[in-house]
Amino acid sequence: MNDLDRLKELFSEFPGIGPRQAERFVYFILRKNGAYAENLSKAILGLKRHIRQCEDSYQYFFAQGDERLSPIARSQARDDSLLMIVEKDTDLENIERSASYSGRYFVLGGTVPILEKEPERRIRIRELKEIIKRKSTEKNIKEIILALSANPDGEHTATYIKEELEPVSKEYNIKITELGRGLSTGTELEYSDKETIRNALQYRHS
Amino acid sequence: MNDLDRLKELFSEFPGIGPRQAERFVYFILRKNGAYAENLSKAILGLKRHIRQCEDSYQYFFAQGDERLSPIARSQARDDSLLMIVEKDTDLENIERSASYSGRYFVLGGTVPILEKEPERRIRIRELKEIIKRKSTEKNIKEIILALSANPDGEHTATYIKEELEPVSKEYNIKITELGRGLSTGTELEYSDKETIRNALQYRHS
Amino acid sequence: MNDLDRLKELFSEFPGIGPRQAERFVYFILRKNGAYAENLSKAILGLKRHIRQCEDSYQYFFAQGDERLSPIARSQARDDSLLMIVEKDTDLENIERSASYSGRYFVLGGTVPILEKEPERRIRIRELKEIIKRKSTEKNIKEIILALSANPDGEHTATYIKEELEPVSKEYNIKITELGRGLSTGTELEYSDKETIRNALQYRHS
Amino acid sequence: MNDLDRLKELFSEFPGIGPRQAERFVYFILRKNGAYAENLSKAILGLKRHIRQCEDSYQYFFAQGDERLSPIARSQARDDSLLMIVEKDTDLENIERSASYSGRYFVLGGTVPILEKEPERRIRIRELKEIIKRKSTEKNIKEIILALSANPDGEHTATYIKEELEPVSKEYNIKITELGRGLSTGTELEYSDKETIRNALQYRHS
Repeated sequence: MNDLDRLKELFSEFPGIGPRQAERFVYFILRKNGAYAENLSKAILGLKRHIRQCEDSYQYFFAQGDERLSPIARSQARDDSLLMIVEKDTDLENIERSASYSGRYFVLGGTVPILEKEPERRIRIRELKEIIKRKSTEKNIKEIILALSANPDGEHTATYIKEELEPVSKEYNIKITELGRGLSTGTELEYSDKETIRNALQYRHS
Repeated sequence: MNDLDRLKELFSEFPGIGPRQAERFVYFILRKNGAYAENLSKAILGLKRHIRQCEDSYQYFFAQGDERLSPIARSQARDDSLLMIVEKDTDLENIERSASYSGRYFVLGGTVPILEKEPERRIRIRELKEIIKRKSTEKNIKEIILALSANPDGEHTATYIKEELEPVSKEYNIKITELGRGLSTGTELEYSDKETIRNALQYRHS
Repeated sequence: MNDLDRLKELFSEFPGIGPRQAERFVYFILRKNGAYAENLSKAILGLKRHIRQCEDSYQYFFAQGDERLSPIARSQARDDSLLMIVEKDTDLENIERSASYSGRYFVLGGTVPILEKEPERRIRIRELKEIIKRKSTEKNIKEIILALSANPDGEHTATYIKEELEPVSKEYNIKITELGRGLSTGTELEYSDKETIRNALQYRHS
Repeated sequence: MNDLDRLKELFSEFPGIGPRQAERFVYFILRKNGAYAENLSKAILGLKRHIRQCEDSYQYFFAQGDERLSPIARSQARDDSLLMIVEKDTDLENIERSASYSGRYFVLGGTVPILEKEPERRIRIRELKEIIKRKSTEKNIKEIILALSANPDGEHTATYIKEELEPVSKEYNIKITELGRGLSTGTELEYSDKETIRNALQYRHS
């Protein structure tokens, strides 16, 4: 297989990309000047070389020296009493974009589908417990926020984590909370599903 | 203009229906047997004849005798202490379908767009105040729930109503609440807008 | 069942309309003044009363007196030597809008799905043969144009009709043609399917 | 800017890719093992190193030695009497997939938008004339097929090329044709635009 076909195949593995769009990517690179291809090639190699996974939060981050913690995990400005649990890096980045959270994070690395028999193979539950214990002796975690998507997998994962964390949350007196449910921006009442209406009513506020 | 073209034009006024779909409706009726057209024609006439607007809630309802109140407004089983304010009948029907509310309703008949100079011409604010006063002397309203869509018009209407109801809510000691904001069913964190994330964080719960 | 629910049900039968949109139609009529409902009701009744099916082309048309033929079928300006066969009235109307055809029409009233065992129950094939025979003795049909959609049902219907019309087309020396296949407006070569490219190549022209 | 952000930016330049999807590509590479990133990086570099542009057809191709012609351009099995003119490589690849053409190709490298004052800067019109002259003295081109998209730019480009090639086509007695226009696969008559109906009628066939 030649480079053209191999590249087409590698791009086809990208999330959401079929063979046709992969082909368009290849011709796009061919039409660009040589510098673009070289920069792209270098950045991909550099990614694996310079990007490390944070030992506390499991977030990927760009390491310039031998840091073992991501900028958020080592920042003095973040609130140690809050730990938010997210599924993946892109969720974390989107929450950061909202500029409404100043605590720490933990990236689960996946979700637990319903009927999964070995949940511990899907998410970093063991690592999560360890970090909570370690942090709780050093500092003081007051609240763990489960920030999972409002779909069956997300809800099942939240239920599983709450059960698993019950002993440790009792031991260290940590409150476990979930993101609020209700009308999201743009929701029209006429078209809302029953669950959203029920949640919006239950969590109504002044 | 003949009946075919006139009917096409009348169907084109239906919400969300363009001239092409209006045309398909006409041919659909033509292909059906005569009874269908007759039933449709009768039901439309009957609608205006038998459907009345409730004097308390302004909901449309089917009146068999000389009732002046809708079934929900005259039901003994509903909770008089709760009054939910909605924009339109289809919102009310969707909330009823969720089977999670047992109080009374008031239909505003519209929303107040931002920059509207005469809000009282857009919604039944005068009628709303009157009904609150009248009900408060007879019975006991404890909470008014603003159930408006989570979009600019809905939010602006909620703000306007809260201001307008302030005196009467103080006088009769009525709490004014809004539907909960946060993740609606199916929302994925990766794609949530900033406002939804902010709301979901603010209204997080155990 | 009251008029409101009955009307909701009748609108739900409209092509492409679900229960929710049917409900919105009902409330739309309720909010309009009484004249709208009366006009709509009358136009629907009038439709069945004044709309007749052409005895030659089977097109629906508005009959003012006791005409038995549609305006197109009785027009002196149309070309008797061309007979175009279409599936339904809306196809005919769209072809008329293109202002590129001046012959006569015949409306089949449906298509013949693949594997259908009794095709004669799906389309007016018997009526079509009769009209061709009758017209061929009176006037002179030179060409029958099969104007069917470019999908499996349309293609199968065309094949069936060609077989059925073979004897009559030989007897009266009538050419049977089909609409041209190739690139339709807006088609991009990069995304064309194989069949379209094959047709576009086969029917290329100077 | 670190590798992560630089890569995000480079992926954002890919056709049809916004910043969010570019981010997902980056995290996808991070989650894959090191071999994937290395293969991707190598294939991109190799692309520019091993992919050459054919001197006859201007198609990109994988060159193993010092070939100057693409496999299609040097194949003995292809028909020299046919020359198909396409806008870009992906059009050519799609036509090859249809397995309905066995002649040669010429890739224009773009289209000529309406009102463009210097069309010769947008497409390889000079190179096209030269290749036609050269090929016509060596071999015998009988037909040039303009295979352009059925949109305003494609049609304008076809008109421009036909004018430009008039002298050379007369000199060497070459017929210039265009792809057939009509119903493409899946087209329904009810929703066809006027131009498509007009073409389908004009190019109807037995």
